[in-house]
Amino acid sequence: MKERTNLTMLCDYYELTMGNGYFQTGLSSRVCYFDIFFRSVPDRGGFAIAAGLAQVIEYIKKLRFDEDDLDYLRQKGCFAGDFLAYLRDFKFTGDIWAMPEGTPIFPGEPIMTVRAPAIQAQFIETFLLLCLNHQCLIATKSNRIVRAAEGRPVAEFGSRRAHGPDGAVLGARASYIAGCSSTACTLADQRYGSPATGTMAHSWVQMFPDEYTAFKTYCELYPTNATLLVDTYNVLHSGVPNAIRVFQEVLLPKGITKCAIRLDSGDLTYLSQRARQMLDDAGLTECKIVASNALDEYIIRDLVRQGARIDSFGVGERLITSRSEPVFGGVYKLSAIEDDEGTIIPKIKISENAAKITTPHFKKVYRIFSKDTGKAEADLICLHDEEIDFSQPLELFDPNATWKRKIFTDIEAKELLVPIFQNGELVYEIPDLQSSRAYCQRQVDALWDEVKRFENPHNYYVDLSQKLFDIKQDLLNRHEGV
Amino acid sequence: MKERTNLTMLCDYYELTMGNGYFQTGLSSRVCYFDIFFRSVPDRGGFAIAAGLAQVIEYIKKLRFDEDDLDYLRQKGCFAGDFLAYLRDFKFTGDIWAMPEGTPIFPGEPIMTVRAPAIQAQFIETFLLLCLNHQCLIATKSNRIVRAAEGRPVAEFGSRRAHGPDGAVLGARASYIAGCSSTACTLADQRYGSPATGTMAHSWVQMFPDEYTAFKTYCELYPTNATLLVDTYNVLHSGVPNAIRVFQEVLLPKGITKCAIRLDSGDLTYLSQRARQMLDDAGLTECKIVASNALDEYIIRDLVRQGARIDSFGVGERLITSRSEPVFGGVYKLSAIEDDEGTIIPKIKISENAAKITTPHFKKVYRIFSKDTGKAEADLICLHDEEIDFSQPLELFDPNATWKRKIFTDIEAKELLVPIFQNGELVYEIPDLQSSRAYCQRQVDALWDEVKRFENPHNYYVDLSQKLFDIKQDLLNRHEGV
Repeated sequence: MKERTNLTMLCDYYELTMGNGYFQTGLSSRVCYFDIFFRSVPDRGGFAIAAGLAQVIEYIKKLRFDEDDLDYLRQKGCFAGDFLAYLRDFKFTGDIWAMPEGTPIFPGEPIMTVRAPAIQAQFIETFLLLCLNHQCLIATKSNRIVRAAEGRPVAEFGSRRAHGPDGAVLGARASYIAGCSSTACTLADQRYGSPATGTMAHSWVQMFPDEYTAFKTYCELYPTNATLLVDTYNVLHSGVPNAIRVFQEVLLPKGITKCAIRLDSGDLTYLSQRARQMLDDAGLTECKIVASNALDEYIIRDLVRQGARIDSFGVGERLITSRSEPVFGGVYKLSAIEDDEGTIIPKIKISENAAKITTPHFKKVYRIFSKDTGKAEADLICLHDEEIDFSQPLELFDPNATWKRKIFTDIEAKELLVPIFQNGELVYEIPDLQSSRAYCQRQVDALWDEVKRFENPHNYYVDLSQKLFDIKQDLLNRHEGV
Repeated sequence: MKERTNLTMLCDYYELTMGNGYFQTGLSSRVCYFDIFFRSVPDRGGFAIAAGLAQVIEYIKKLRFDEDDLDYLRQKGCFAGDFLAYLRDFKFTGDIWAMPEGTPIFPGEPIMTVRAPAIQAQFIETFLLLCLNHQCLIATKSNRIVRAAEGRPVAEFGSRRAHGPDGAVLGARASYIAGCSSTACTLADQRYGSPATGTMAHSWVQMFPDEYTAFKTYCELYPTNATLLVDTYNVLHSGVPNAIRVFQEVLLPKGITKCAIRLDSGDLTYLSQRARQMLDDAGLTECKIVASNALDEYIIRDLVRQGARIDSFGVGERLITSRSEPVFGGVYKLSAIEDDEGTIIPKIKISENAAKITTPHFKKVYRIFSKDTGKAEADLICLHDEEIDFSQPLELFDPNATWKRKIFTDIEAKELLVPIFQNGELVYEIPDLQSSRAYCQRQVDALWDEVKRFENPHNYYVDLSQKLFDIKQDLLNRHEGV
């Protein structure tokens, strides 16, 4: 795995002006709790997918200011000398809890909680948000696309349209966690183990005197991995006939029947059906048809419904940029501070927009599964030290409409926020990417179909315990007068 | 400037399978010409802004495979040993021409041309595209936002919603070239010199017993750079009155009248007008009002038209992701190859979609300026060695409607593609970011207002010389029979 740059200086400048301020005013060691949560699912979906935790861990481990950084800050002229001296030994000494990568996540619940001295907790805000916002975005979009493909493999093809190198490599990583089967991005494979695949571009075909020679040369070089791009000139009159001829001349004599063609333009339903017929008529029933070209979950769903004979999809720009909604709105909000005796004082952020009001206090999150069906029924947010007896019937209520109540019986509960750092020490073993991908698939399988609809999905229940609800109401009432 | 990772392995896997193929079949040293161009301007704008060249240069200079890379490729089992031995000494030995960063660019014209042995020219495709696509996208969006602000400074605020670390840092870089005046991203300042600014988050206000104390503490720490965030509780009843009180108590006694408040929620027109009145009534006429919160060029235009009293804007997610159109569709297409005698053989890519047909051959691009107005009138694409006498009247025609002709007189022409690499050697001095920003502003100023409209802009002329047009037609006619 290649070493990545230390990204300590990738912070909003105000993290530093505030940090200096906390340092100068004696607030720097005040222990704070911050939650990362999001308010709405991109593309009006029913859930998102957590991703990016591994890069947060890497960042926290490498967090340090080197002399270049201190020189840069010094010449800004607004940071005190003792603050810069403090930064020289800066390291993260706090605690972090997070939902594992691949977890389906819902609006309003903490997907990560940071407990640390104010100066540290504030400083890491920008990086944590950008890391989780990016990978959650791409994982969420990828999972939609993978679900639309209904079991057909989806390859991530989008590096060239990504937002910079990290957009390509980390995007490929997130797409693999969320269910893509491969990527075109070599570095994502080398660095993170999401398998890289790829065969030819149109330019390969153009480099040869004719398409037949281009195909033949390729099949002779890669007889066991020949996916021929058949749309450089004319799919049905040139590309598919040349591919069939070459498969018959080069592969079949070797006893190889596994091969593929790729369609990258035109009407994919029509072309795939015609190509399938031509391939079958030639006895190439094991030849797969791969389709690409500005695909997304909606186009794939239509292709599948129309009976397109496509065996797998390559998805580029609309996945790697999450084109239909390229922003994942995760936020980082103060939820509590500790007083000098270590007592937790809950904090709330008020807004005229009710959806923007935060849920205060140090919390934990349970996912409630039905023992009968194995399906996830609701998430319950409660106080960090609250004891709940899940062997008893559990009554939950909608915090925005408290008369809506439901009793759950025969359930089991799983705590979703797991310890990542304790006192600055990493206490979490990062799963390999294959494990996160398998975990993601199991967890998505445990959601009801109603939550997985693309249009008007069921609103999965994310409820507060009575204790937490009461604390929130109390803080809201006390703030009324401001 | 911090060292960035060697990104050689950030390539689509097919660049490697094709590279191995060219190597095995003796085609690897065949000299090829590739153009990068795009087909439509994001947001249906009239032009885009070139950016990303400096990172392409950095990539090309660092291009090399280390032993880890070769080990990784070896275990794939599909690359020949002699190909891997070749990669060990791989370097770029070709030529690159490009339009400087900050240049307004138009669909269909080459913004970069690569001339290199096939194996090299093919290999660098993915990185060149992702680098230019990303930064051109953000520069183009940023320039729209800056124009909407009509001279009011625009600060880039979007790191936390960017697509990964590079999305934040390189996005901030591109936004500065295109006219933003600052960024919140510290690393973009440290690494590239786009000035970083920032003051406080809502959490600063929440950390203190009350808003007044939070503001007062901040002003005492940073008396010459106090921008107070006034919407944590209630803008008009709490935030602005507390800011006024603190400015009067802390700043005015020091003779400081330069200060600011920031609005980050609510109706920005209404709140800014009311806040302006309150500040003026308190004698704080030099206090600026900064606004942020999900802004883009359309909202800013509306705020300006409605008479919002906003002095500068902070723009986040909609800039750093180019939310309304997060894909810049630059492509990399073969335009010619050289035969064994070095004769250039033009190549064309046919498509049923006329807009997707490429313009063949090794080319250069002139921008034609009126001597009278100084305005850019048209771009002319011609053969690389074509001599055109711009002292004579110049007749241009629309290549898609050849009866549309226009004669230009009293013009001067500027060649847009400048040499960057020659025989693998860098021959271009990268301007500093301030120079690129100033160049961008001058070049955008030289466009007619009609080209700069947000809705239905005038289609700037991008025409072909008669010679180039004839070659393209000839290739099209010859391909008809395929």
